Order: sequence, then C-alpha cells, then structure tokens
Amino acid sequence: MPTRRSTAQWEGGLKGGKGTFKGESGGIGGQYNFSSRFEEGVGSNPEELLAAAEAACFSMAFAGNLEKNGTVPTRIDTEAACTVGPAPGGGSKISGIAVKVSAVVPGIDDAKFQELAQKTVETCPVSQTFHGNLELTVEAKLVS
Amino acid sequence: MPTRRSTAQWEGGLKGGKGTFKGESGGIGGQYNFSSRFEEGVGSNPEELLAAAEAACFSMAFAGNLEKNGTVPTRIDTEAACTVGPAPGGGSKISGIAVKVSAVVPGIDDAKFQELAQKTVETCPVSQTFHGNLELTVEAKLVS
Repeated sequence: MPTRRSTAQWEGGLKGGKGTFKGESGGIGGQYNFSSRFEEGVGSNPEELLAAAEAACFSMAFAGNLEKNGTVPTRIDTEAACTVGPAPGGGSKISGIAVKVSAVVPGIDDAKFQELAQKTVETCPVSQTFHGNLELTVEAKLVS
Repeated sequence: MPTRRSTAQWEGGLKGGKGTFKGESGGIGGQYNFSSRFEEGVGSNPEELLAAAEAACFSMAFAGNLEKNGTVPTRIDTEAACTVGPAPGGGSKISGIAVKVSAVVPGIDDAKFQELAQKTVETCPVSQTFHGNLELTVEAKLVS
C-alpha cells in the first residue's frame, strides 16, 4: 500500500519565523506562520490540513458506505471544522473536529442515512487516527 | 482560539466517484479519487494531507523548542511519510508517520538536538491527535 509524503521548511524562531509545506503529489502546498495558525494572518495551518484530511476521507468513505447499501450518492458536501482549545499545562491543544455533511442520495430513508453518517465518522481511516484524542461529531442532512 | 475549516465534495460511489477538497484559507485544495488514494492516480489524498499537517506542525514546534533552548534555528527541513497497512478486519488502516528532519541550528550540540527532536515528535499538537493510534518516529540530522 502506498506511503504518502509531504515536506515542510521553517526558518527562524516560533513567532518570528516562517514556513512552507508541500505534498509530493504537487496538489497541495502553501505558506504558514505563527499568525496564520494562531491569529488571522494570511496562509494555511496544520489544523486546516487536518480538517481537509477528515473532510476528504469522510466524504469518500461515506460514498463507499452508501454504495454498499445499494444507494450510490449523487453528491456529498462535507465541511470539517477543527477546533483548538487551551491545553491543560498551558499552550493550545487540538480538541475536536465537527463534521457537517449534506448529501443527495436517491432511494435512502433518513434513518439509514443518519446511521451510515454516524458509522462513517467513527470508522473512516482518518477518524481512526484521532480516536481517544479528539472529539469527532457529525451532523448529517439528506437533501433532494 | 481559531477554528479552522475545510470542505470536500464527492460525486458517485467509492471506486467510480471523484472528489475535491478545499481549505478556507484558499491556500490548499485539490482533487482526489480512489486511484489517487490507493493506487498511483493523479491527485492528492487524505494521507498526504495528514503528512503535511504533521510536517508543518512538527517544524514549527521544533523551531519553538529550539528557540526556548536559546538556539534559534536557521532552517528546518522536514519530511513526513504517512504509511498505510492492512486493517485487521479487511481494508486499509493508516499505520504510522515517519518524520525525517535535518536542520541548521547554530550553537547546539547533537545530544540536545536529538532530545528536542524526540520531544517535539511526541508533543507537538498534531502528534497529540495521533497518540495511541499511529506509530510516530523521528530521525533527526544536525547539519551545518
């Protein structure tokens, strides 16, 4: 099974320094710094990357679970929000990821849709990397 | 503390479908599908995003730990490799992230450098989200 690589470079100290990151596929990359992470500076940040990993993985796994149910989705729209809170010993801690999904899925009833959304947020590969460390929630809406 | 959001869209089933993802900063985004995740297709994948989150977070936190030590880094170069293995019940499982870092850090000796690299891979905020679920390792090289 494939190994996926990304790189980052950082120059200088924590608040005065600056960084860049890049994925090996060439599809992702950007700049980041203290301000883009903890304040409102321009650039990306690791929390946004975790949210993107969860949103992407959840969406694909939900499609797989819906397909297995005999109800192939037409479209799945997912938002993942990664929250940061204070750490017990000072500093900050990534505390949770809240998933909101709306999907067009012909032929499914809402009870089954909710069940599969819940199952997916608990079992998709990226969610599994967070078990016990992050609060993962899902709010799912079946749209037509 | 800020909440960071990313979105993903998926159309169709697991193998026949296709997806896109985007971070709210505008700095990250791309396409992905079954082939770009589990085979060698063009596009990104959630594992690459996790690797990018770890590489970026590790680099920034390492800079902070080096700075606290009184040895501000000139440059930190980090690669994170996210490995995927078979899951116990079938399918695949994200199994580990291996960090390789080389850094230019005036005034530090190798023992302290290694100690801080190890501390950082264990304690940076993104690493903490993986504790108990992923094997995290670091290989650190002090360069001049």
